[in-house]
Amino acid sequence: MKTKTLKNVRPMGAAATDLHIVDGRFTASAGADAEVIDCGGRILIPGLVEAHTHLDKSLLGLPWYRNEVGPRLIDKINNEREVKVSLGLDPQVQSERHAILAMSHGCTHIRSHVDVDTHHGLAGIEGVMATREKLKGMIDIEIVAFPQSGMMTRPGTAELMGEALAMGAELVGGIDPCGMEHDPKGHLDTIFALAEKHGKPIDIHLHERDSLGWFSMEEIIARTEALGMQGKVAISHAFCLGAVDRAYVAGLHEKLAENRIHILTTAPASAPVPAVKELNAMGILVGAGCDGIRDTWGPYGNSDMLERAMFVGMRNNFRRDDEVELALEVCTYGGAAIMEAEGYGLDIGCNADCVLVEGETLAEAVATHAPRKLVLKGGEVTARDGKCVVEAP
Amino acid sequence: MKTKTLKNVRPMGAAATDLHIVDGRFTASAGADAEVIDCGGRILIPGLVEAHTHLDKSLLGLPWYRNEVGPRLIDKINNEREVKVSLGLDPQVQSERHAILAMSHGCTHIRSHVDVDTHHGLAGIEGVMATREKLKGMIDIEIVAFPQSGMMTRPGTAELMGEALAMGAELVGGIDPCGMEHDPKGHLDTIFALAEKHGKPIDIHLHERDSLGWFSMEEIIARTEALGMQGKVAISHAFCLGAVDRAYVAGLHEKLAENRIHILTTAPASAPVPAVKELNAMGILVGAGCDGIRDTWGPYGNSDMLERAMFVGMRNNFRRDDEVELALEVCTYGGAAIMEAEGYGLDIGCNADCVLVEGETLAEAVATHAPRKLVLKGGEVTARDGKCVVEAP
Repeated sequence: MKTKTLKNVRPMGAAATDLHIVDGRFTASAGADAEVIDCGGRILIPGLVEAHTHLDKSLLGLPWYRNEVGPRLIDKINNEREVKVSLGLDPQVQSERHAILAMSHGCTHIRSHVDVDTHHGLAGIEGVMATREKLKGMIDIEIVAFPQSGMMTRPGTAELMGEALAMGAELVGGIDPCGMEHDPKGHLDTIFALAEKHGKPIDIHLHERDSLGWFSMEEIIARTEALGMQGKVAISHAFCLGAVDRAYVAGLHEKLAENRIHILTTAPASAPVPAVKELNAMGILVGAGCDGIRDTWGPYGNSDMLERAMFVGMRNNFRRDDEVELALEVCTYGGAAIMEAEGYGLDIGCNADCVLVEGETLAEAVATHAPRKLVLKGGEVTARDGKCVVEAP
Repeated sequence: MKTKTLKNVRPMGAAATDLHIVDGRFTASAGADAEVIDCGGRILIPGLVEAHTHLDKSLLGLPWYRNEVGPRLIDKINNEREVKVSLGLDPQVQSERHAILAMSHGCTHIRSHVDVDTHHGLAGIEGVMATREKLKGMIDIEIVAFPQSGMMTRPGTAELMGEALAMGAELVGGIDPCGMEHDPKGHLDTIFALAEKHGKPIDIHLHERDSLGWFSMEEIIARTEALGMQGKVAISHAFCLGAVDRAYVAGLHEKLAENRIHILTTAPASAPVPAVKELNAMGILVGAGCDGIRDTWGPYGNSDMLERAMFVGMRNNFRRDDEVELALEVCTYGGAAIMEAEGYGLDIGCNADCVLVEGETLAEAVATHAPRKLVLKGGEVTARDGKCVVEAP
């Protein structure tokens, strides 16, 4: 029986105390022979949750990719599908590199969209599943079967989606039903049918802005309601909720709340974004993610969800400490609730998935996002001083 | 005579070569007894330029300040003016801490707005001037006398502004002539009169958005033209250039270009911003800055202008390598040109103000902004491995 005592630790910035871990869970006590870890008065937060990324497509560890891609969404999608071949991208290796980088920053849970298309078939799903198996116990990875290149516009993809779900992908993905698919009814009927057939939830990318996005979102809401899928649908990006017409958006917030539809944001600086504080006030669950990192879409990103909490704060103009704490909540409890992560948190009985951060307060930890002193997953050390205990391939 | 050879270095990402430094400047050769610094094939860029910050107001080195400030601009201004007293903020100490942090990241030039008001008088100016003297030769600091708390609304401030300029502040600052001052004619006439009287350029904060900002900007342009101050006026923030009506904004760009008015952006994620690529295409000089860091306005910021280049890129949706390189140019050559920094660059004859960065390409250096290997100012080492050679107080 592995027992540990985290000595002199401040859970979520509260007064210093000792926490105990037995068999991977927080317990009220841990006996005298427990391994004692002196936390030096540092703040402890639960494991960071990367709730929207793309593990199969980063270029980590490869020579620099000079980006000369066109400005449209479809330029990026078409370029990537081709370039994956010429670069010889291995989804298993790339996802392992990416996941280990996330772990080094204190991430304990990842929801990854993984491309499914007729060009690459299920190679992405297989690769990320292999990584998930390899890193089992060190990080929880949830897979969304994601028709990045279109499903209605690319016959054969829906069947591959079905195979991916049968193989073990946990969620049905989707993408801009109008802007990408040119057939909102066809696309949404297909993904909701897949969800029903496989008994799996949905997480759909929605980049469509303003009224086009509102239309697609209302179609998603209508199907969620009709099929009784309340609590089982998430919308990623949801740029249309960042629209200027706040009265219209408020109406959408109400319908989202009624149907317990979750929102995942990556808080991009260059696109309209869902207003985290408004969603939170409506009781809508909000999680966050880094989106793709260092890939053919763009050069940025490092898979650090504490830095992402800063981005969520900066994008939402959060300056007060209570606001910055909300940004951090989105990157921890919010994403965990959306992923329905069992036993998440710092309470007695919860999994000992946790991160020692630097800073006097939670807001300082977010603003500085200094390398994490220690990361535990199920009570075992997965990273120390910003370095993961396992080497990336 | 101090001579150095930077061996195996890639200026701006070009092929590896050796650069030579004699008496603080790049030269064609440096004799056999030069100190040789092996740069390991790293990219060299000229010193980073922090062209918009507030050295007098960061809370670096102090206990965490819990921010519970109200949402309006005036809330932040009023709170700060009061809190400076209760916190016992020493502008000399704070500006030294701030400048040393900037130096650690490779900054060699800073333009700092410094508060002038009837509450604190010239204490800020005196403090930053003392820091400038203390760090002379290690970093160039330019001071803007800045009426943060208003000038028309706060009698006595204009006189203090005049004193600050007489003491050695290099530029006349200003602030939202309508939104803050409620008297655009009075405010702008006053700052342009100060500029004429003291023969100094202007750098005015303009947060006003959309048509209010356009009005103020047009009033600034009209005065610049009437007084023949072309090339001597800069507008900081210029949120109104980020307005949705691009046709109107294009008209403003033309007038700004005609009058050689410069734009300083901090590329905030939560406000409309000037479009860097459009300004650049018009031949308008663009510089960037971190704005205030870790102060009573908000918890973010670390004075790293290489990270700021990433923010400029992210805010402007720059993804291509040539775009990310433009973001870096803004944070180096752009700011330097606006500051009229003598001998700036990596050419023979330029001051040896330069930074060794990590990464295969300039875009990678920006995206990862890893700690800088080495920083030189006038050929002398000011920072190594992310640490400044002088300790902060």
